[in-house]
Amino acid sequence: MIDLHLIGIGTGNPDHLTGEARRAIAQADLFLVPHKPGKSDLADLRTQIIADVRDDAKIALFDMPVRDDSLPYLARVDAWHDEIARIWADTIAAHPDARTVALLVWGDPSLYDSTLRIAARLQPAPRLHVVAGITSVQALTAAHAIPINTLNAPVTISTGRRLRDHGWPQGCETLVVMLDGECTFQTLDGDAYDIWWGAYLGMPEQILEAGRLSDVSARIIKRRAEARAAHGWIMDTYLLRLRA
Amino acid sequence: MIDLHLIGIGTGNPDHLTGEARRAIAQADLFLVPHKPGKSDLADLRTQIIADVRDDAKIALFDMPVRDDSLPYLARVDAWHDEIARIWADTIAAHPDARTVALLVWGDPSLYDSTLRIAARLQPAPRLHVVAGITSVQALTAAHAIPINTLNAPVTISTGRRLRDHGWPQGCETLVVMLDGECTFQTLDGDAYDIWWGAYLGMPEQILEAGRLSDVSARIIKRRAEARAAHGWIMDTYLLRLRA
Ligand SMILES: C[S@@+](CC[C@H](N)C(=O)[O-])C[C@H]1O[C@@H](n2cnc3c(N)ncnc32)[C@H](O)[C@@H]1O
Ligand SMILES: C[S@@+](CC[C@H](N)C(=O)[O-])C[C@H]1O[C@@H](n2cnc3c(N)ncnc32)[C@H](O)[C@@H]1O
Repeated sequence: MIDLHLIGIGTGNPDHLTGEARRAIAQADLFLVPHKPGKSDLADLRTQIIADVRDDAKIALFDMPVRDDSLPYLARVDAWHDEIARIWADTIAAHPDARTVALLVWGDPSLYDSTLRIAARLQPAPRLHVVAGITSVQALTAAHAIPINTLNAPVTISTGRRLRDHGWPQGCETLVVMLDGECTFQTLDGDAYDIWWGAYLGMPEQILEAGRLSDVSARIIKRRAEARAAHGWIMDTYLLRLRA
Repeated sequence: MIDLHLIGIGTGNPDHLTGEARRAIAQADLFLVPHKPGKSDLADLRTQIIADVRDDAKIALFDMPVRDDSLPYLARVDAWHDEIARIWADTIAAHPDARTVALLVWGDPSLYDSTLRIAARLQPAPRLHVVAGITSVQALTAAHAIPINTLNAPVTISTGRRLRDHGWPQGCETLVVMLDGECTFQTLDGDAYDIWWGAYLGMPEQILEAGRLSDVSARIIKRRAEARAAHGWIMDTYLLRLRA
């Protein structure tokens, strides 16, 4: 039986790595590392993190399959996950000596990441081990030095698409938004919310903005577009809080 | 101007420490470490973590003030935070050579923790630095090897008190509950939810239960009471998901 370690590596700062992650990296026989066309600095970060821990790692690079855009959303994601699982299974089978296989996962493996869902497709089922990693949500609150919640109050974490389709969640005071390519905060009443925004969190390129949404919304949109043009890609996350 | 580092240390597993946290510990001139009567193994964990990184640390232990139970909840918390801030200020003033002061914070400093709110009371204001740490939420999902969210769906993190007073949040599919001394999941319809529960997460004493709430609720209550009696204290966290 294969031991499969899903190792959270944090959000781009090699210093986010935990002792537990270092240990899991040190012990793996084989690493499955995706090539992401267009985001090669991110694939490089994975190999770089492994190289920082050890110089004798066996790394199997694999190409991410392309999603079939002709399918409806859920079917497309499902077929894509099947395809990735097939590639992992083939790669593991090609390395019969590897008993302990590792995947490095951006942030924390539990949060808006498909690695666990893909791993669940593997037959025979591996023994699964998850190593927690610093999420982009924590990188955001740490960079701004803010609590995520107000005193004992709840917090909701959601996506840009969800905010666009369903609006501000009922009864919600604090909303963290991820996976938003469209600055969906624009759809809200800017005078009713404060925003703490961050892009490339934990990385040297990190940019931050904070303030009343109506004051900083336009500047965030502008800086985001400029940074995205300059780097070729962007990842950003933000926290919105209803003003008292 | 003082540099004040709030360093997330994870939830009881010294291996949760990140490289960033180790570095911050290595560079601090002075550590403020609370004595918590009755939870001395937790205070010990803090000094142990510091000792693992360096053996020359200057540690100022301070007694946590007692809360004034005659005050209403918010006023009581407010007065208590004022009092802690005063102790920190006095301790820092007593060490005029210390320019970089550090506090080790359980889990992540952003999540249900008052350290940031207390630090905001310090005059003159220090330069604040927050180092993210693995939260008990992540320790829970890692231990169970589960994603926190279903595909692209939101997640709410809340407290036991809130669940008791307001019931299941409207429109919510996944709820993570912290700070619950009363197994408030008992108030829910056990057939409608699955639960993933964990106590002493990341620690050698870790216990886990998972299943349909109606199947495992009684067992969790029993194991929780037994463990609490055996150790003298308990910390537990759980994730509830509406069944399809
Ligand atoms: C597929 S999700 C992966 C989340 C990851 N598992 C985590 O724990 O943060 C990708 C989203 O995470 C957020 N994100 C990840 N890394 C980020 C970073 N360095 N800076 C800002 N946002 C980031 C963005 O919202 C992005 O759309
Ligand atoms: C005051 S809050 C601090 C949370 C912390 N800042 C974090 O990031 O996890 C304390 C609550 O966190 C949860 N908790 C903290 N450590 C835990 C552990 N090792 N196992 C289970 N729950 C834990 C419990 O719900 C507890 O009531």
